[in-house]
Amino acid sequence: MPHTLVLLRHGNSEWNQKNLFTGWVDVRLSELGTSEAARAGQLLLESGVLPDVLHTSVLTRAIQTANIALDVADRAWIDVRRSWRLNERHYGALQGLDKAETLEKYGPEQFQLWRRSFDVPPPPLDDDAEWSQVGDDRYANLYDDQMPRTECLKDVIARMLPYWESDIIPDLKAGKTVLVTAHGNSLRALVKHLDGISDDDIADLNIPTGIPLVYELDDEFRPTKPAEYLDPEAAAAGAAAVAAQGKK
Amino acid sequence: MPHTLVLLRHGNSEWNQKNLFTGWVDVRLSELGTSEAARAGQLLLESGVLPDVLHTSVLTRAIQTANIALDVADRAWIDVRRSWRLNERHYGALQGLDKAETLEKYGPEQFQLWRRSFDVPPPPLDDDAEWSQVGDDRYANLYDDQMPRTECLKDVIARMLPYWESDIIPDLKAGKTVLVTAHGNSLRALVKHLDGISDDDIADLNIPTGIPLVYELDDEFRPTKPAEYLDPEAAAAGAAAVAAQGKK
Repeated sequence: MPHTLVLLRHGNSEWNQKNLFTGWVDVRLSELGTSEAARAGQLLLESGVLPDVLHTSVLTRAIQTANIALDVADRAWIDVRRSWRLNERHYGALQGLDKAETLEKYGPEQFQLWRRSFDVPPPPLDDDAEWSQVGDDRYANLYDDQMPRTECLKDVIARMLPYWESDIIPDLKAGKTVLVTAHGNSLRALVKHLDGISDDDIADLNIPTGIPLVYELDDEFRPTKPAEYLDPEAAAAGAAAVAAQGKK
Repeated sequence: MPHTLVLLRHGNSEWNQKNLFTGWVDVRLSELGTSEAARAGQLLLESGVLPDVLHTSVLTRAIQTANIALDVADRAWIDVRRSWRLNERHYGALQGLDKAETLEKYGPEQFQLWRRSFDVPPPPLDDDAEWSQVGDDRYANLYDDQMPRTECLKDVIARMLPYWESDIIPDLKAGKTVLVTAHGNSLRALVKHLDGISDDDIADLNIPTGIPLVYELDDEFRPTKPAEYLDPEAAAAGAAAVAAQGKK
C-alpha cells in the first residue's frame, strides 16, 4: 500500500512583511500567514487527506501554521513531534538584516549566491549577536557543534535527512498519513531528496506557502508519481511569487 | 530538587454556552474560552512558570486551550503528548442533553448524583447514538473494553492514573516543568490523588477554568505545600461559579 506524505510550508510572517532575513529567528505569523494556514486546513478537509501525525520544526511560525490548519481540518488531536532538524536554514550573519539594503550593499550576484547557492553559506553569526539563538532553551539538548551559526542548503540536508530516516519514515511505515509543517529550505531539502533533484537544479525550485503538497510514496519511500498541490493554480502563482522575491 | 506540575482546565466551550452535557463530545472553545486560554498564557508568562512539555487530552477544547496559552507564553515549541486518558469524564446517555431540561425531568437529587457522585455513573450511551464516540479515528488504538460508554469519577481515576504514572511522572523525573491541559473531571481525579482527598470530600472540589494551578512536588511526587493558582482571586470566583452550576 502506498504511503501518504503531506508537506506544508508556513505562511507569511511578521518578518516577511518587514522584508528581513529570518532564518532561525523565532518570529510569528502575520495576519496574512494566519489566513494562509486556515486555507491549508480547508484544503486538507475538502480533499479528505487527513493527517494522522504531525512533524514540525521548533519555530513558532511553523507550529502556528500546523495548529491552525489542523484545527480547521478537525484534526487538532493527532500526535505531534517537533525537531530543530526541520527548522528553516540558519541565515548566519544575515539574520535580522533588511533584504533590500543587503541587496544594495552587496550587489545582486552575492545576494543571489547567499539565497540560492547549494554549498556557500553566508558569514556565520556571532554567538553574542542580537539575533543569535545560542542559549535558547529549545536548543538546550543540542551539542554545541550541532548548533548552526550559518547554513547553506547542503548543511540543511545534512541535518534534516537523519530526522527523515529516524522519525518520519517509521510513522509512514506504520501506515500513518504524515504532515510535515516546516520552512522553505527544510522542505526544499526534503523535496530534493524525494524527487532526486540535482545540486544545480534545486536552485530553481520554489515551494509556495500555505498549500499542502501531497506525495504518494512506495515501500522504498520514493514517489510513485509526481507530487500534487491540493490547489495547483494557487500553488503555481505562489511559486512564481517566491521566485520573484530574488529578482527585485 | 522539587518538581513543578501545572494543571490547566480548558475554558468555556460552545456547549457550555448552550448548557448541554458534553463529556467526550468534541466541541470547540467559545470566544470566551479563547480569551480564558490567552489569559492563562499571560499568567504563565508573567509568573515565569514555563512548561517544558505539554500533556493534553485528545479533545479539541483542551488542545485549543493549550495551543493558545503556550502561544501567548512563547512556548509553542515545547514537546506535546496527548492521551484519551486525560479526557473529560464520559457522560454516558446524558451527552448532548440540555442540563436544565435534565434537571427538571429527573429532579435535583438525581441530577446532583450524576454530576458529583463518586461511583454512580449515568446510564451508558448506545454505540449507535448520535453523540457516541465509538468508531472515532482518535480512539482506533483502544481495545473495545477500554472505550467508555459512561463513567463516574471513580472510573476516570482508574483510567487516568496509569497515564500519570507511565507518562507524566517520567517527564517530572527528567526535571521538566509539566503542563497538563485537561478537563474538570480528569483534573479533579488528579488533584484527588495528589492531595489525598477522600471519596466523599472530592464532591466539593471545583476547579476553575483557565487559571493555571501550580504544584511543587517532592521526589515521591507528593505536594511539598498546598498548590497555588497563578491568579488566586480569579480562581476563587471561578470555583464558586462552577459550584453554583449545580445549584441552579
